[in-house]
Amino acid sequence: MADTQQTIVEGVDALTLNGKLETEATATAAAASEETATTTANVEDVVDPWNVASSNDAGIDYDKLIKRFGSTKIDEELIARFVKITGKPAHHLIRRGIFFSHRDLHTILTLCEQGKPFYLYTGRGPSSESLHIGHLVPFMIAKWLQETFDVPLIIQLTDDEKSLWKDLKIEEAIKLARENAKDIIAVGFDVDKTFIFNNLEFMGKCPAMYQNIIRIQKCVTFNQVKGIFGFGDSDIIGKIGFPAAQAAPALSSTFPFIFGNRKLHCLIPCAIDQDPYFRMTRDVAPRLGFPKCALLHSTFFPALQGAKSKMSASETNSAVFLTDTPKQIKNKINKYAFSGGRTTVEEHRQLGGIPDIDVAYQLLKFFLEDDDKLEEVRLAYSKGEMLTGEIKKLAIETVTPIVVAHQAARKLITEEVLDKYFEIRALKFSS
Amino acid sequence: MADTQQTIVEGVDALTLNGKLETEATATAAAASEETATTTANVEDVVDPWNVASSNDAGIDYDKLIKRFGSTKIDEELIARFVKITGKPAHHLIRRGIFFSHRDLHTILTLCEQGKPFYLYTGRGPSSESLHIGHLVPFMIAKWLQETFDVPLIIQLTDDEKSLWKDLKIEEAIKLARENAKDIIAVGFDVDKTFIFNNLEFMGKCPAMYQNIIRIQKCVTFNQVKGIFGFGDSDIIGKIGFPAAQAAPALSSTFPFIFGNRKLHCLIPCAIDQDPYFRMTRDVAPRLGFPKCALLHSTFFPALQGAKSKMSASETNSAVFLTDTPKQIKNKINKYAFSGGRTTVEEHRQLGGIPDIDVAYQLLKFFLEDDDKLEEVRLAYSKGEMLTGEIKKLAIETVTPIVVAHQAARKLITEEVLDKYFEIRALKFSS
Repeated sequence: MADTQQTIVEGVDALTLNGKLETEATATAAAASEETATTTANVEDVVDPWNVASSNDAGIDYDKLIKRFGSTKIDEELIARFVKITGKPAHHLIRRGIFFSHRDLHTILTLCEQGKPFYLYTGRGPSSESLHIGHLVPFMIAKWLQETFDVPLIIQLTDDEKSLWKDLKIEEAIKLARENAKDIIAVGFDVDKTFIFNNLEFMGKCPAMYQNIIRIQKCVTFNQVKGIFGFGDSDIIGKIGFPAAQAAPALSSTFPFIFGNRKLHCLIPCAIDQDPYFRMTRDVAPRLGFPKCALLHSTFFPALQGAKSKMSASETNSAVFLTDTPKQIKNKINKYAFSGGRTTVEEHRQLGGIPDIDVAYQLLKFFLEDDDKLEEVRLAYSKGEMLTGEIKKLAIETVTPIVVAHQAARKLITEEVLDKYFEIRALKFSS
Repeated sequence: MADTQQTIVEGVDALTLNGKLETEATATAAAASEETATTTANVEDVVDPWNVASSNDAGIDYDKLIKRFGSTKIDEELIARFVKITGKPAHHLIRRGIFFSHRDLHTILTLCEQGKPFYLYTGRGPSSESLHIGHLVPFMIAKWLQETFDVPLIIQLTDDEKSLWKDLKIEEAIKLARENAKDIIAVGFDVDKTFIFNNLEFMGKCPAMYQNIIRIQKCVTFNQVKGIFGFGDSDIIGKIGFPAAQAAPALSSTFPFIFGNRKLHCLIPCAIDQDPYFRMTRDVAPRLGFPKCALLHSTFFPALQGAKSKMSASETNSAVFLTDTPKQIKNKINKYAFSGGRTTVEEHRQLGGIPDIDVAYQLLKFFLEDDDKLEEVRLAYSKGEMLTGEIKKLAIETVTPIVVAHQAARKLITEEVLDKYFEIRALKFSS
């Protein structure tokens, strides 16, 4: 899986635009080119598994994206059904529209209602040793979904993908996968219900994985991956074949040691840039006798410098990293967090700040669980009652304990603990 | 590996022509198209891993093929060196030019001379349960090379390839691979020095295999496989990625349980239609720090109906199959073997037969080990002293005991025996 908390990249070549199909992944190359042409004219946002770019201060236009991808907005009615069926309040990331779009979530809720089994699947592309706090988002929701539904969770680390896309040796990619897994485990997954694997090692331990990849690769043409992912003739053949490796875990038979030969539904929480993979998967699955995977899409996590800026592991000031000290966090947010405040205190008091483009406010939206407090902050900031320094202070106070707690939890993840999550084994399954 | 004893197919679409590159696999798509254009104009033979077609009664023009593929003819000097270094007479398939072309065989002989290690690698694409006698050819030479050099032999069954190319389910392809392996083992390989595997199962047992595939797939673009194999935009992505699976066993690190981390040379005996795979492999290997694989190419085995005819498992009369009874063999050869004899006995006595297009004579060339006897037959038949019925009788007498012996040997190959060859283990290694 590519980095599910995608970074925001400026100025991506329009020719690499893709993921623009109105319907699911059935495009021909011709249709794709047409789409590209239209897109170039409109200067739309770029969202695909490798590039995310917006020309707008407020970032990606997610409503447009839902239309383009053909997914469905998560509305109040769906959230109400969610609450009713699970008997738990919706997670704040769902309540606040950070998980904003879905595919077939109603099907999953119906299964839940009927007490029928399904599983969760998410992942990460281990391209760097240093994760930032945004990388926690899909795992925070995965943990909550796992606890809420009491179902098994599969976490794929696509070290093969990162080796193919980056200047990264096989051995390095495997090492990163294992290091990243420690950060993931530190989020607090139940080892009895969670299986974590990296493709470069799992492929050599489970024949069903390769066999399902071949089944999937038999259903997808180069024209299709060209349309869906924007691959071209000069791309390496590893890239062309890779989407099947990310699709395979959405077929329950990839894990016979967990699911036997049952053909179960799966729900995939991920950032919306990963949707192209699963549009493809949803086209293929029924042809192989499997249900279509359901999806829960999140928006992107902003760089400290704002929605238009680039966030990367090599630019240590572009994000709060999980290895930062409290002092570093304080300095970074104070110094770099893009402000929606006004240029002078007087102007700010008079006009008020703009929370939607204010990165400190965005951090609170992701990490401050108290809804009342958040709304209070939003109002005060909008009215100019709260100053930039104050909202930044609150963001620092919110983010710092999360990072500190994460570091403490991660310290406990030894190689032995890691191996338990990676071990090929049955998982506990309530239904 | 595709069927290394390729069938002869007529009337293949000129657009599928490929494997036409003068140099090794470095072509761009543009170069490939140019080549295709030239080829169409000249009506050259078609030779690629999936199609072999000749417009000539005598079959493929192998001298032209050597030029086109950029390989080297096996000449008297090379055979003399072979004999000198191994201290054994050359195999009759080499002496008679059935193995007619090579790449870097001198390097292998030098290693042998210096007592340095290398290994053999060959394979088969298990598309059918019924093998014909021609399918034995690469394994006959592999056995002889193994005994002559006393080196390990790797045999790959590309059940993944057959599943991708044919209307064959994963489970069926695996079953065929195991059935075909019984026929291969019946040729008589030393279990201590032979490792046999099928991709669809081995991939899930040996992480090094997938890791090397990713390494190879990172070095090869779609443009390159387009040029080498003639793949197009409407081809499934499984086909596009597959060449790496056939290339991987030519890197010794794919088998850490046999070779540890040594980077050894390997020699691949195969029919010349498989050369495109290994041209690609030879381009990639040095970039990954491995020596280029050496090759020993054979001509194609003729269909009973002659070099221009199609041989297939579904046409039971197109070849002598390894499951045929002596009576079936007799009937088939008498009834269907294309004759180089004349239309009347009188004419035949006067003008003589043409051994080069006579299938009974070809069978003798492949399977009659006695050189003197073969030359005697050739002369007598050419002069018209020997009649078609007589040469067919000799072919029947030569082929029948081979098939009968094969059937007896195959009966002894139980699932347990099979499992021993497939077991992941160290091999005995003299050097």
